Amino acid sequence: MKTKGLLIVISGPSGAGKGTVCKALLEKNDFWISVSATTREPRDGEIDGVNYYFLTRDDFQSKIKSKDFLEYAEVYGNYYGTPKKSALDAMNLGKDVILEIDIQGALKVKENYHEGVFIFILPPSMEELKHRIINRGSETKESLVTRFKSAYKEINYISKYNYAVVNDTVEDAVKKIESIIIAEKCRVDKVESEILKSKEGIIHE
Amino acid sequence: MKTKGLLIVISGPSGAGKGTVCKALLEKNDFWISVSATTREPRDGEIDGVNYYFLTRDDFQSKIKSKDFLEYAEVYGNYYGTPKKSALDAMNLGKDVILEIDIQGALKVKENYHEGVFIFILPPSMEELKHRIINRGSETKESLVTRFKSAYKEINYISKYNYAVVNDTVEDAVKKIESIIIAEKCRVDKVESEILKSKEGIIHE
Repeated sequence: MKTKGLLIVISGPSGAGKGTVCKALLEKNDFWISVSATTREPRDGEIDGVNYYFLTRDDFQSKIKSKDFLEYAEVYGNYYGTPKKSALDAMNLGKDVILEIDIQGALKVKENYHEGVFIFILPPSMEELKHRIINRGSETKESLVTRFKSAYKEINYISKYNYAVVNDTVEDAVKKIESIIIAEKCRVDKVESEILKSKEGIIHE
Repeated sequence: MKTKGLLIVISGPSGAGKGTVCKALLEKNDFWISVSATTREPRDGEIDGVNYYFLTRDDFQSKIKSKDFLEYAEVYGNYYGTPKKSALDAMNLGKDVILEIDIQGALKVKENYHEGVFIFILPPSMEELKHRIINRGSETKESLVTRFKSAYKEINYISKYNYAVVNDTVEDAVKKIESIIIAEKCRVDKVESEILKSKEGIIHE
């Protein structure tokens, strides 16, 4: 029997570089990447089932009703969501599933699948995030303060996550995520029942 | 400021190979290894502070009174114990401390230092442990059953640990322990206060 795979949720504030980290992680490892569903029109070159699952509004809403999403949101009149069944199927086959998602989405996934491994990607330092915000352009002092406050608020959500990975270099961040996945598979609360089951053989054989 | 090091407690039933795993782990990494204190006489070639700290009975007992041990036990009239101060000093300097110890000792360490990382080393399979027990020699059926029951009982303590590492190959077990150490340093409950502290700079500067 194969051990069940993990749901690894990779999230964090914008500017932390979670997309780059995920890309590098998937190049090196045989993980299963979650593909989102959406009701928006496919753009040129986008393939159904690869970039997105393209659904009609009716289909999407009926899937919401039947609780077929780990999370979903409506953005500018279009639905976006993370299908539940395909991720759970992959995990049941022993695959680790990677889900890259913003903070709001990650918190909703946590409500529906608390056993996930929630990883918060951080910029190298708060100083660095500050520089990135300042260097984005000629903003007014008021708008800078608003942005700082928003970053400040976003980072508060870290307490909802299991792990924080500082994206100092992509290589280092990938190594940390790989280590987290190995360690999670060794956690006693995850393997205990299996070990105690195999132990029964000693006494009863 | 350096991040505080971890106390990594490596333990498990006899026959699991924790000694071999620890030796390989220490060869590859710059960890600080805890040296036990004892009241037994030094054997030929044993060096004070390297193999053991050799203490008089009076010294040992006064250290028990002043709670200077993470754990101690009396075995065949001699005391053995894990000094607390030197381990905590090393951790305060940012060193990760490795403590290889039997199950009874590990459980006592947990009472005194709950923040430690408790790793349970398992033999490749319960079948393998059974074979090792049988192959130890020409035991009676009764004594085999006693040994099985003891192994059975020892493995029940796994629930007191944080991680279980199957010693299938030493290389693989070492990699898992190294991953656990990296992952533990990313745990949000360990790094959160530091991150939120450094975040304050964004607003107040």
